[in-house]
Amino acid sequence: MGAQRTVIKTQVGIVGGGPAGLMLSHLLSKSGIENIVVEKRDHETIRTTHRAGILEHGSVRMLTETGVSDRVLTDGYRHDGIDLRFGGVSHRIDFQDLVGESVWLYPQNEVFTDLAAARERDGGDVRYGVSDTSVTDLTTDTPKILFTDAEGTEFEIHCELLVGSDGSAGICKRSIPKDARTDNFIEYPFAWFGILTEAAPSAPELIYANSDRGFALISQRSETVQRMYFQSDPNEDPDAWSEDRIWDELQARVDGPDGLELKRGPIFEKTVLKFRSYVCEPLRYGNLFLAGDAGHTVPPTGAKGLNLALADVQVLFEAIDSFYATKSPELLEGYSDKALKRVWRAQNFSYWMTSMLHTREDASPFERKRALGELSGVVASRHGSAYLAEAYTGWPNA
Amino acid sequence: MGAQRTVIKTQVGIVGGGPAGLMLSHLLSKSGIENIVVEKRDHETIRTTHRAGILEHGSVRMLTETGVSDRVLTDGYRHDGIDLRFGGVSHRIDFQDLVGESVWLYPQNEVFTDLAAARERDGGDVRYGVSDTSVTDLTTDTPKILFTDAEGTEFEIHCELLVGSDGSAGICKRSIPKDARTDNFIEYPFAWFGILTEAAPSAPELIYANSDRGFALISQRSETVQRMYFQSDPNEDPDAWSEDRIWDELQARVDGPDGLELKRGPIFEKTVLKFRSYVCEPLRYGNLFLAGDAGHTVPPTGAKGLNLALADVQVLFEAIDSFYATKSPELLEGYSDKALKRVWRAQNFSYWMTSMLHTREDASPFERKRALGELSGVVASRHGSAYLAEAYTGWPNA
Repeated sequence: MGAQRTVIKTQVGIVGGGPAGLMLSHLLSKSGIENIVVEKRDHETIRTTHRAGILEHGSVRMLTETGVSDRVLTDGYRHDGIDLRFGGVSHRIDFQDLVGESVWLYPQNEVFTDLAAARERDGGDVRYGVSDTSVTDLTTDTPKILFTDAEGTEFEIHCELLVGSDGSAGICKRSIPKDARTDNFIEYPFAWFGILTEAAPSAPELIYANSDRGFALISQRSETVQRMYFQSDPNEDPDAWSEDRIWDELQARVDGPDGLELKRGPIFEKTVLKFRSYVCEPLRYGNLFLAGDAGHTVPPTGAKGLNLALADVQVLFEAIDSFYATKSPELLEGYSDKALKRVWRAQNFSYWMTSMLHTREDASPFERKRALGELSGVVASRHGSAYLAEAYTGWPNA
Repeated sequence: MGAQRTVIKTQVGIVGGGPAGLMLSHLLSKSGIENIVVEKRDHETIRTTHRAGILEHGSVRMLTETGVSDRVLTDGYRHDGIDLRFGGVSHRIDFQDLVGESVWLYPQNEVFTDLAAARERDGGDVRYGVSDTSVTDLTTDTPKILFTDAEGTEFEIHCELLVGSDGSAGICKRSIPKDARTDNFIEYPFAWFGILTEAAPSAPELIYANSDRGFALISQRSETVQRMYFQSDPNEDPDAWSEDRIWDELQARVDGPDGLELKRGPIFEKTVLKFRSYVCEPLRYGNLFLAGDAGHTVPPTGAKGLNLALADVQVLFEAIDSFYATKSPELLEGYSDKALKRVWRAQNFSYWMTSMLHTREDASPFERKRALGELSGVVASRHGSAYLAEAYTGWPNA
């Protein structure tokens, strides 16, 4: 059947048209480097899949300064801090005061929408709704992407460099032989029970709440729709939770002497979000380069996932750009090490936020009180607060 | 036999004549509050038992400004930083630059010597070498200490307040009924193999080294005697370790491209130091108050033990002083909560330093790399470095 495939040649083949793949495609095209993106989902599915979104200042600059869109600045919400809440008391971590930076609340599907529109505007080659995608010849000078397009035509992309930005369940990582990669991971004994509700915001900024009943995150989405989560069993059945039960549980986790009361509304989405920490090492195999969730996933506490994907793309773009400008593979060869440095830093931050804010059923009283001692220490120390604020708003891409 | 006991009355009875008990006795006497200290060890044993000692600036001020002794400033060594070493590379945490503070290397037995001399100079009542010590009537207005002195005479101290500063294996904590206290603790799956050696210093400041072989601490004691430790199995047999084997192991844990070479010398003490994190809650039972190791112990990483004991004493002294000055028990009633706040903060710091710097046999590759990501992140961030420096040099006693 390979004989009947239509062959297309390009410089960079990109598997996965989420924010990472589209951003890389955008940057490469701007730099005159040919590229094609294939994505198994259709445009509409990605656009309407609700995903959280806290953008670091660096991610916002990447979108605005490279000409993707300014919409994050007009339609997103700038947040200058978060609340850490424990013992029923909120303690604001003031990003602007501590490190002079902010983050933007702007859902991931909006980032996708902006990138997809920019690619369309600029004539980018993005093929949605493809199937039977596979990658081959990864260690040769002509790695290939095989796929069937939305109309059923079979294609073969012959490229010079291949990028896997196809998410944590993607095919690219799995195409790296097991003996050529190390899978580093830890599982967590809990998940996030997430809801979307039609209600006014309960707070102006995100509240990360630690309570004896477990963690809760009071987040926002817009003036009329809110996003909230509470720590749950990974096998929790969303159908077993009535709206009242959900609201009572969320409220119980933020109860405190200040009388913080969540603004309730109809709940129109309930999901149990399982997560783990994972890092594939290295992020390269031959001429295949992994970026974003395809190479690593973080727990959502700390909101690093999308930002880390965009940071990978920045490093990878510079490496590819240098490769075509100078013919020297030096930066390409350094990509994995450079990207992994930030990845491990972010893994640690996400792990730290997760373990400090969640409660484990098997935690000893010592563990529980130590975590509270840690939270108290972080908010009592300007240095500790700034260490957290700097990580949350985003380190410079060293 | 109780009928034959000699009864002595005092205001504050103190069980335990280590640094915490003697410092409290010193402060109380200066404030005109009668007190008696009983200690089971003899003076010479305590004075000659080698113990590590890094004093926070607050601990140094406590010794010098209350008139105990200035010897820490003349005979101790001011350290303006430590090295965090990982991947064979040292990264200095510059305390002076980061938080404008220092610590002092001054062994704990020297602190004892100074305090014991000051108590003797000022006519303090300290009874060493006592035996069969017990405490009774803790919830009454006249708690009592029963003991037999070094000459075999049986005594009974009737006091108004009783302080247990008799260390982690002391009798005071155990005299609190189990249902009136919570024992919070965690064990660690490793210990420190410690040596004293006759050699010149290998480095001007402490080196906290993380390596794939485990943690090592290169510490100092004087120009001619050095203290070093390496992470070991808690059941390690010191006799199974020749001098060469010890030096090779220590050297292997600090090897790196900078060629750091330990200065070897005869080893005259080998000990395996087991440790755990422990906090008794509350630090009070009736008129018994616990201070220092009698109420809590920390792993040695981070050098918080003695400093935490002196911080307890500061808070407890102020509470007792206020009680006798005003007859209001308010500060006494707040002692446990106030002291525990610092204790949990220090527990977290000690736990953090321990888990970041040690390696566990059961650690997954993820855990190992996350810890390295954390170390890299701390030294790469001025905020992270300052957060560590502030904790190491000592928080203000809020």
